[in-house]
Amino acid sequence: MSIYTDAQTIIQQAIKACLPDQAVRRALEDKTFAPGRVLLVAIGKAAWQMAHCAAQLLGERLDAGVVVTKHDHSQGVIPRCTIYEGGHPVPDEGSFEGTRAAMRLVQNLTPDDTVVFLVSGGGSALFECPLIPAEELMSLTQELLACGADIVEMNTIRKRLSAVKGGRFALLCAPAKVYSIVLSDILGDPLDMIASGPAYPDHTTCAQAKAIAEKYQLSLSPKARELLEKETPKMLDNVETVVTGSVRELCAAAGAACRELGYEPILLTDQLCCQAKEAGSFLASIARTHQNTEKSLAFLAGGETVVHLTGHGKGGRNQELALAAADGISGLQDTLIFSLGSDGTDGPTNAAGGIVDGNTKALLAKAGLIIHQVLSENDAYHALEQVDGLIRTGPTGTNVNDVAVVLIRRMPV
Amino acid sequence: MSIYTDAQTIIQQAIKACLPDQAVRRALEDKTFAPGRVLLVAIGKAAWQMAHCAAQLLGERLDAGVVVTKHDHSQGVIPRCTIYEGGHPVPDEGSFEGTRAAMRLVQNLTPDDTVVFLVSGGGSALFECPLIPAEELMSLTQELLACGADIVEMNTIRKRLSAVKGGRFALLCAPAKVYSIVLSDILGDPLDMIASGPAYPDHTTCAQAKAIAEKYQLSLSPKARELLEKETPKMLDNVETVVTGSVRELCAAAGAACRELGYEPILLTDQLCCQAKEAGSFLASIARTHQNTEKSLAFLAGGETVVHLTGHGKGGRNQELALAAADGISGLQDTLIFSLGSDGTDGPTNAAGGIVDGNTKALLAKAGLIIHQVLSENDAYHALEQVDGLIRTGPTGTNVNDVAVVLIRRMPV
Repeated sequence: MSIYTDAQTIIQQAIKACLPDQAVRRALEDKTFAPGRVLLVAIGKAAWQMAHCAAQLLGERLDAGVVVTKHDHSQGVIPRCTIYEGGHPVPDEGSFEGTRAAMRLVQNLTPDDTVVFLVSGGGSALFECPLIPAEELMSLTQELLACGADIVEMNTIRKRLSAVKGGRFALLCAPAKVYSIVLSDILGDPLDMIASGPAYPDHTTCAQAKAIAEKYQLSLSPKARELLEKETPKMLDNVETVVTGSVRELCAAAGAACRELGYEPILLTDQLCCQAKEAGSFLASIARTHQNTEKSLAFLAGGETVVHLTGHGKGGRNQELALAAADGISGLQDTLIFSLGSDGTDGPTNAAGGIVDGNTKALLAKAGLIIHQVLSENDAYHALEQVDGLIRTGPTGTNVNDVAVVLIRRMPV
Repeated sequence: MSIYTDAQTIIQQAIKACLPDQAVRRALEDKTFAPGRVLLVAIGKAAWQMAHCAAQLLGERLDAGVVVTKHDHSQGVIPRCTIYEGGHPVPDEGSFEGTRAAMRLVQNLTPDDTVVFLVSGGGSALFECPLIPAEELMSLTQELLACGADIVEMNTIRKRLSAVKGGRFALLCAPAKVYSIVLSDILGDPLDMIASGPAYPDHTTCAQAKAIAEKYQLSLSPKARELLEKETPKMLDNVETVVTGSVRELCAAAGAACRELGYEPILLTDQLCCQAKEAGSFLASIARTHQNTEKSLAFLAGGETVVHLTGHGKGGRNQELALAAADGISGLQDTLIFSLGSDGTDGPTNAAGGIVDGNTKALLAKAGLIIHQVLSENDAYHALEQVDGLIRTGPTGTNVNDVAVVLIRRMPV
């Protein structure tokens, strides 16, 4: 078994653990519900996979369901469920229609009923029922963007103009229980942000909303102005939330795979957000420092780095991170660094990320490639391609950010 | 005791452990020498302090010594030693004169004699005896720089044109023993690079030197061409080397101080070399991830980050790192990040670094300062100054790079 085989095993197990159906399975397997009806509402880009798995697990317990996912994301019939496809990132009539169907589904429930609510990224656009005309909402959104409002300010306004955002969907389900299973694609799992938190208490206030409207001198219709006065729910005692797919679990699964292979896993962070190539340099400096270790080590950093475009090449943040790391670990033995996008698509490429070792820099040099030049051209893909440095998984069907792993392999004494 | 008091204790103890005299003391205290003469040669910017301490410790055992340091770096008489001051970074007649005195001192020694050789940064310029005219060496150096030769290529050539570099000084001392005590200011302690390795085997070859001369079409005099044919020592069995002051010890001392205060220290790296502000972001993401820890934690990263100048403000790499970290740890409780330059002078400022916590960002905002704007103006000094975020130690008399520390303080249950 080479260190590369180890890396491949870690990559496969990490992705597998974070597939939407695995995530749903973990959350539903040992769950029991009140004796009433069980209804399913699934929203977001992974709604179909999540609902498909939940429907299998719930079997005869499932009464009915509504699935709202992105256009072309449905993969077929799901028993007892109606599937809608809508626009993302801009909501369209499909989004609204699906959302209205979900709202009808949860009407007139009893305290003995349960709504299994499956939430994934993209839900903000796909699950929406505006309380003002859609065109008005869209022009207001554009106005907010144009005046430089940040995402928190945007959401403070938008939650009040929606029938389902900011905890309001959970309120519609009451008195039924809501069991919310969240697949998180935002670092730190801010539950009020993921899909705009339809089943999560909203901490923003009407006063804040009005202050923002004032600050940016928003042109609001009388109806919109009236809506800003209506408070969102601050407490939802009918909701239980479990975040089951997230970068935290991606890291945990990668760490568990490392441990099985004999590496001691050390989680650095699951909220990495700095520049990709600088993260690569940092991880390489960690690898250099720990060369004298007696046991095999694995340092893990999950999150989502950023790339500053300075060239016109082809690449992605995971490929840039790995390529930059190759510079820093050049010459080291039995040391490998990889960075993986869990969705299998790193930037606009068909690779999931990059994988490098102590020989990569020399191999690149033989091919006439100098790492810092390649990075300044943002052309990591073509460079890594030449030295077998691309990770290829194909689209994985999940998106719980990225994980970078430093492996230092030492033979047991 | 607040987390700030903890940080101050860690800063003081880390610096104290890396002062040149402490470093020399650790290396000499339990050392015994062969029964012959003991001679002292000290080179580099810290040569005076190192020699001063060594002379005290050696007492009557010391026969004679030569100290070659930078202009204005001598602080007075040292018993039995002659002190020379020379040019840095460009060698001058003072450098050459001091070096010749050291070469005379180590002539005609016996296997029972010992040369205590104290090496610190700046030694490449301060300890030099060119085998070609000084002007020729200088113009060759400029030629190499102009044609884009890297530091390894430069040294491969220059070691062969010097009577003392590349292990040759140790050869002059033979058959006496050389006990080399190295204060390292280069990450990773490359002993052939620090002061150009006068007492360290040289791994470059004549063939490489000639290839470099060919590659850049260097205009060499017949004498220089002849010198490139002469091999440098590949083995030095009369030398014992100890690296005693280095960023590794700065990190170890900081870690020990953390442990004494109840934090579990985790050394990330002692070779950090990425962008300062990105390192700050990375460290902040580590701090965010480990908030749920039950015991107090300290993550340490030593090295020397870099700053990309985009503005015209005032600051230094440690201040930029800390300020960037303030953004990432905003709102966290009992969490602090500092970054310290061990020389007490971070960039062109009178501060040694920066120190921030979960309130820093809000305090800056109250003062009308937005972190990413301040960073793009490279004006960390003025921003941190307003929120008590500067570390001030004054010049410390050592330079073993920087250390950044994340403190997460949790009360024992």
